[in-house]
Amino acid sequence: MRQITTEDIAHVTLGATLLGTGGGGDPYIGALMARQAIERFGPVDVVDAADLDPDGLVVAVAIVGAPTVIIERVPAGAEFVESLRAMGRYLGRDPVAIMPIEVGGMNTLIPMATAAEVGLPLIDADGMGRAFPEIGMTVFTLAGLPATPITVSDEKGNLGIFETVDNRTAEILGRTAVVQLGMANAVSQYPMTARQCVDSAIHGSLSYCTELGRMLASARDGSPSALDELLDFAGGRRIFNGKITDIDRRATDGFTRGTCDIEHFDDPLRSMRLLIQNELLVAIDNGTPVLTPPDLICVLDHENAQPITTETLAYGQRVDVIALPAARQWHRDGFLDVVGPRAFGYDLDYVPFGRN
Amino acid sequence: MRQITTEDIAHVTLGATLLGTGGGGDPYIGALMARQAIERFGPVDVVDAADLDPDGLVVAVAIVGAPTVIIERVPAGAEFVESLRAMGRYLGRDPVAIMPIEVGGMNTLIPMATAAEVGLPLIDADGMGRAFPEIGMTVFTLAGLPATPITVSDEKGNLGIFETVDNRTAEILGRTAVVQLGMANAVSQYPMTARQCVDSAIHGSLSYCTELGRMLASARDGSPSALDELLDFAGGRRIFNGKITDIDRRATDGFTRGTCDIEHFDDPLRSMRLLIQNELLVAIDNGTPVLTPPDLICVLDHENAQPITTETLAYGQRVDVIALPAARQWHRDGFLDVVGPRAFGYDLDYVPFGRN
Repeated sequence: MRQITTEDIAHVTLGATLLGTGGGGDPYIGALMARQAIERFGPVDVVDAADLDPDGLVVAVAIVGAPTVIIERVPAGAEFVESLRAMGRYLGRDPVAIMPIEVGGMNTLIPMATAAEVGLPLIDADGMGRAFPEIGMTVFTLAGLPATPITVSDEKGNLGIFETVDNRTAEILGRTAVVQLGMANAVSQYPMTARQCVDSAIHGSLSYCTELGRMLASARDGSPSALDELLDFAGGRRIFNGKITDIDRRATDGFTRGTCDIEHFDDPLRSMRLLIQNELLVAIDNGTPVLTPPDLICVLDHENAQPITTETLAYGQRVDVIALPAARQWHRDGFLDVVGPRAFGYDLDYVPFGRN
Repeated sequence: MRQITTEDIAHVTLGATLLGTGGGGDPYIGALMARQAIERFGPVDVVDAADLDPDGLVVAVAIVGAPTVIIERVPAGAEFVESLRAMGRYLGRDPVAIMPIEVGGMNTLIPMATAAEVGLPLIDADGMGRAFPEIGMTVFTLAGLPATPITVSDEKGNLGIFETVDNRTAEILGRTAVVQLGMANAVSQYPMTARQCVDSAIHGSLSYCTELGRMLASARDGSPSALDELLDFAGGRRIFNGKITDIDRRATDGFTRGTCDIEHFDDPLRSMRLLIQNELLVAIDNGTPVLTPPDLICVLDHENAQPITTETLAYGQRVDVIALPAARQWHRDGFLDVVGPRAFGYDLDYVPFGRN
C-alpha cells in the first residue's frame, strides 16, 4: 500500500500535463482540489486492482466538460462525491475503490480529491494511459465493458443517470447533459468489478505518470540528462525541434481545434505541423504523418523540457517535440476504431510507433 | 370502476384533439396505440385517485418530442413500458396506477396503451386539463411537486434518469436527452403518492375529455345543437367566426410557431389573429387580446364543428373560434408564472375568462 500526500501532487501534476499531450484540462485546478482534500481529509491510499476484493465495485470519477469553462468555474468537489454516491445508490452497493479514467490532464488529480473526501483507495490504473476527449475512448470500450450507468452531477444538486446500448451513445447523452447543466460537471462512470479492472485496465499508470513528473521536475531543476532518462524510461524519442512559426487555434463548442507549425532549428526547409483537437493528435513532418493516435505527442519548452499546453503554444516558442508510445494495453484488435486517427475524423492511416 | 374499451377511443380521441387546442401531437397515433394495446391486453380500468391506496405510487407516462417526428416514427409501445419499469426500479417500488400528464393531444391516449400493456389502472385525472408544451407546465408544479425523477427511454434500449432541483431544469435536461435520442421518446415523470395526486391533480379530466368527444361526434353526425350543448357543458363560448385569410407557420427546433388571421363573416373590418406555439395560445380581436393561456382556444370547422389542428389550418377555411376556461385547479397563487402569457414569452397580461 502506497499513499499520495500533498508532496506527491506536484509530480503527479507535471506528469499529467505531459500525458495530457497539450490538452486534458488544466491539471493545476485538479492539483488545487487534490491538495485541499488531502490537507482536510488525509492522504489517499493507492492500491493495485489485484489487491481488491475481485467482486468489489470500482468506479471512475472525472470531470466532463469544456476546459475553458472548468478554468473559469473551479469545481467545489461536492458534486464529485454526489455523482459517486448516486452511482452507489443506483447500483445498490458501495464502491470499494475509485479509479482515474485518464492519467493526462486534470482528471488524473480530481479522483484523488474525491478519494480523499470519501475515504476510498485510489487504483493505480486508468482507461486511457493518457488523455482523450471522449467518454468512450478507453481500453474498457475495447474490452467490451459499458461506460454506463453514468451519473452526472452539478454543483446545484441536479443529477442525470444514463444507461445506453453503447459507449458512443453514452458520450452523446452524457456530454449533452453536461452542456445543459453548465458545460462542466462531475461524472461517475465505468462501474465494474475489481476483477474486470484487473483484466482490462492500464495498470501502474498513476505511478508511471508520477515518475514522468519527477523526471520533468529534475529537468526543470537543471539536470541535463533528465529528458533522456525520461525518454529511456517511457520508450519515447525526440521527433523534432524548432521554433513555432504559426498557430491556428479556434475554440468551437467547447473544443480547441487547430494547427501548430514548427520550423526546424537546423533546416529551415523542414517543418512539422501538429494537428490539435484539445490534445495534440497528429504530427506531420514535411508532409508525412509521423505520429498518430493513440501514440502521444508532447511539446516541451526547449530550454527546460517543461510541457506546453495547446492553450499556451505561442509564436516564436523554441520547442522540442517528443513522442511516447501508447500504453501496450491499447494494442489489441479493434483499437483503431476506438482511438485511431479515423476515430478523430482524420483521413489517415495509423503510423505504428517506431516506424515513424 | 369504469373501463375504457376500443369503443371509447374514438370519443377520447376527438376530445383530446379539441383540448389539444391545435397542438399536443396528433391523437390519432395515440389512438392507434391504445386500440392495439386494448385489443391485445384487454380493456383499461379507470379509477379516481381517491380510490387508490393513499401511499401507492402514481406515475405519469407520456411521449416527449417533436410532433412531426412522432408522426413519422410511430412509437412501438415497449419504450413506454420500459420507462415505467425503470421508474419502479429507481424508486424501489412498483406503481399502482398510471396517470396522463395532459388530456389534450396524443398524451391522452398513450398512457391508456401503457396501462393496458402493464395491467395497471388509469387515473381519471391529469396535470394540465389541456395540452401544454413543457414538462413543468402542470398544476403539480404549482403545488410544489417535483417532475423528477424522470425516466426517458427510447426504442433501442437507451435510458436516462434525471433528478433536478426544479421542474424548469427537468424540462431542459429531459428534452435535451429526447433530442439526442432521436426527437421523440417515452417519459415517465411526476412520481407521487395517490394522496398527493388527490390533493393536486385535475380530477375527472379524462371523463371530461371523453364527454367533449362524444358531443363533437354528435355535431359531426349532424346534431344541430351539439356545439351549444358542448359550450354549455364546458362553460365555454364562441368568440369569433370567419374565414382564414393568412397563415404564417414555421417549424423551428421541433416547435411550430406562427400566426393565423381570420376575417369575420359579418364584418370584413373585424379580424382575429391567433398566436401559435404548437398550441393556439393567444387570440387577439381587432388588436385587443381576448383570450390568453391557460384558457383554451379551439378552432372548429364551421360546417361540422370538428377541431382543426395547427398543422391543418389552411387559407380559406371557414371556422368557428371557441374559448373554454382553464381547469379551476389552475386558479391559485402563482399560476401565471407557470402557464400565463409571459411564461410563453408574450408581453401580455392574462385576460380573465369571462372578461373578454
